[in-house]
Amino acid sequence: MTGKMLQIGLVGLGTVGTGVYETLCRNHDLLEARAQIPFEVRRVAVRRLDRPREVEIAPELLTDDWHDLVEDPNIDIIIELIGGTTEAYRLIKAALEAGKPVVTGNKAVLAEFGGELFRLSGEKGVPLYFEASCGGGIPIVQSLQNSLICNNVQSIVGIINGTSNYILTSMREKGTSLRDALESAQKLGFAEADPTFDINGWDAAHKALILAAVAYGIPLKPDKISVYGIDRVESVDQHFAGRLGYTIKLLMVIKHHTETDQLELRVQPSFVPLNHILSKVDGVFNAIAVKGDIVGETIFYGRGAGKNPTSSAVIGDLVLAMRERRHPDFHTGFRPYAKNLEVLPISETVTPYYVRFRVQDSPGVIAAIASVLARYEIGISRTSSTFSTTDGKGLTWCNLVFMVHECKWGRLKAALKEIGRVPNIDRHPVVFRIETFND
Amino acid sequence: MTGKMLQIGLVGLGTVGTGVYETLCRNHDLLEARAQIPFEVRRVAVRRLDRPREVEIAPELLTDDWHDLVEDPNIDIIIELIGGTTEAYRLIKAALEAGKPVVTGNKAVLAEFGGELFRLSGEKGVPLYFEASCGGGIPIVQSLQNSLICNNVQSIVGIINGTSNYILTSMREKGTSLRDALESAQKLGFAEADPTFDINGWDAAHKALILAAVAYGIPLKPDKISVYGIDRVESVDQHFAGRLGYTIKLLMVIKHHTETDQLELRVQPSFVPLNHILSKVDGVFNAIAVKGDIVGETIFYGRGAGKNPTSSAVIGDLVLAMRERRHPDFHTGFRPYAKNLEVLPISETVTPYYVRFRVQDSPGVIAAIASVLARYEIGISRTSSTFSTTDGKGLTWCNLVFMVHECKWGRLKAALKEIGRVPNIDRHPVVFRIETFND
Repeated sequence: MTGKMLQIGLVGLGTVGTGVYETLCRNHDLLEARAQIPFEVRRVAVRRLDRPREVEIAPELLTDDWHDLVEDPNIDIIIELIGGTTEAYRLIKAALEAGKPVVTGNKAVLAEFGGELFRLSGEKGVPLYFEASCGGGIPIVQSLQNSLICNNVQSIVGIINGTSNYILTSMREKGTSLRDALESAQKLGFAEADPTFDINGWDAAHKALILAAVAYGIPLKPDKISVYGIDRVESVDQHFAGRLGYTIKLLMVIKHHTETDQLELRVQPSFVPLNHILSKVDGVFNAIAVKGDIVGETIFYGRGAGKNPTSSAVIGDLVLAMRERRHPDFHTGFRPYAKNLEVLPISETVTPYYVRFRVQDSPGVIAAIASVLARYEIGISRTSSTFSTTDGKGLTWCNLVFMVHECKWGRLKAALKEIGRVPNIDRHPVVFRIETFND
Repeated sequence: MTGKMLQIGLVGLGTVGTGVYETLCRNHDLLEARAQIPFEVRRVAVRRLDRPREVEIAPELLTDDWHDLVEDPNIDIIIELIGGTTEAYRLIKAALEAGKPVVTGNKAVLAEFGGELFRLSGEKGVPLYFEASCGGGIPIVQSLQNSLICNNVQSIVGIINGTSNYILTSMREKGTSLRDALESAQKLGFAEADPTFDINGWDAAHKALILAAVAYGIPLKPDKISVYGIDRVESVDQHFAGRLGYTIKLLMVIKHHTETDQLELRVQPSFVPLNHILSKVDGVFNAIAVKGDIVGETIFYGRGAGKNPTSSAVIGDLVLAMRERRHPDFHTGFRPYAKNLEVLPISETVTPYYVRFRVQDSPGVIAAIASVLARYEIGISRTSSTFSTTDGKGLTWCNLVFMVHECKWGRLKAALKEIGRVPNIDRHPVVFRIETFND
């Protein structure tokens, strides 16, 4: 064991902060033996000093002002776990300016202020570590930055929101509605009281933006990502998916189109073939598939959220910060090294699709849909349908599913608009992409 | 970009060496931009200078004596890719003694001489990196040493031999024999001319020993691991496995029994339930499942061998070596930090089992087997059988399968010995462990 005792300042004692503090105490000797660096938690900043704590902590360690930590010359490294964006941004900025490396698990603050914070980190030569912001305990950021460093990344496709994956899994397994699955997820602690960003896809989008920045060395910019959430998934679609050899997953898709040097960047519920490993990632688990020009396909799987898995990632970064704290010239904190990549407009992206039309059961409907698709040169690979049901007005409706071959989204969209004008067809078909994983 | 130009010495220009050299040339700018360290390959040592090369390389870079690299004061880091054990051992030892960090992908030399080489590395403060020795392009060693550093590892279970996994997969999918599957693997380049260590399990065992050393911080010792290969797997067993909801995989199993502080350490073909992700790892792919007390379950999946995936791992280590070369006090090269763990005797290990008896179709056989198992207090969970076939002597034989509940291997072995004395039962039943993944 060498070097002076390193002093850690921990800001935030919520779920993850508590987990980090507990683990630093419980596995302290193991960590020192492995890292060969002596360390201790010197101070902990919390919002309210009088709140009851899950963890035993000496009162003299606590303060309700994080400035005390940033301004303490004895503190070497700051761990930011307060969540939110405004205050977290101020804290990270102040710490970097004070020359203190920062470990954070806060994807929202990075998605919003990452551009500025990483620029500051680069200027000051003070690293900012953020493994815990993507995929909980899964070591995806460190792997992209270290083990896979020689690879031109061809694509990153993954399931990176545990709450929505839990909901989709229980909808499929139990046949429940999204609302019921969400309620049960909240009861079990797998969904927050306000699950908006989990359901509408933006939590996954924040992570996708961070991973795109890391993989392509580009500045982090929160625009031009196409985002749809799981709110459009109905049981009937999961039923069709299973019948056709797929399962529906909320996917993040990052793909580098080398011929045009453009980045495809999207989050949406997609059909995943049952023979692909990602289709087996159920419940709160996350998985991220990275394709590199040298390594080929790799997949990282694990718990994507929660107190302990996230603590594991925070502490992994903390040890890296401790090892690298003296050597800002070679640190692995993120610095953009490439110019920004142009984002491929979403209308130009190409996949096969699943399209479900709700139609009135009447002669000529299938012919009308098929002929519009033909006119747009969109090939049909399979069709399927449900039995008709009669509504309150005595009209009979059924679901007609068309699986169509690869085409640009813009073209399919135009065709669907035209189909929407055909009588007896509900104007808003349900569309999901089908991911193929073969390129 | 900072610091002096780092000089790399590459020893070995076989498959992986060629891949490393090609990638260092092709992705050189990307690597320098990401790592922020200027570097070049200064010299390359090969066995024979006159051999035709797959890769274009300036003749003045080549030498047929690796001592030229080790003794060159300008060379900062040595990459060892010559394979084998004797010469590789001499080279690694000489390089460490000369103060040059070494990157290797050689599992055999580590399994045999790792104890001594890591001791030397620790004494000299010169790191030895070996990500490429386990799981090809999968970043398992770096993840255990860095991202997952705060975890007490509970278990590591994985498929870490691509050749045997390819063979088992084609036996299952095409119903071919092991011999035919091996021949086709050799034709396709997925098996070496001499596949002995792939088939008999020792390649996987070498990797298991290395991962056990890393995960538990113990000295690397090549004894006391229980090893069986895939040579005992027959098509009929794969057929039964599928029927019963399993697939057969060559598994490495490392498990820490905390109550006795013992390590379970074994390699053998095992039944893996079809609902576990490892059952979906087919062909030449590898996957390693790590359970930690903090992170929970994580799985790393990717190509376990081959020129490019292995090169990716070698270069990941090389960049780490470049970053850490000035700072031996904090390097991540492996150093045992724990006392040796006692290995749990294999007779004490507990799993459920699949036992297939070849029996003569005659009254009383099932009763005889069942009553011996009962006497040994071994519970039967399921039975299954095949139709009888008649051999050349007019005797009718059939396969009787017993799935038995968890028990110590020593107890089952004793029961099987006794059953072997019952008339009309072939003395050598086929036994596979059933992995449960629930603890």
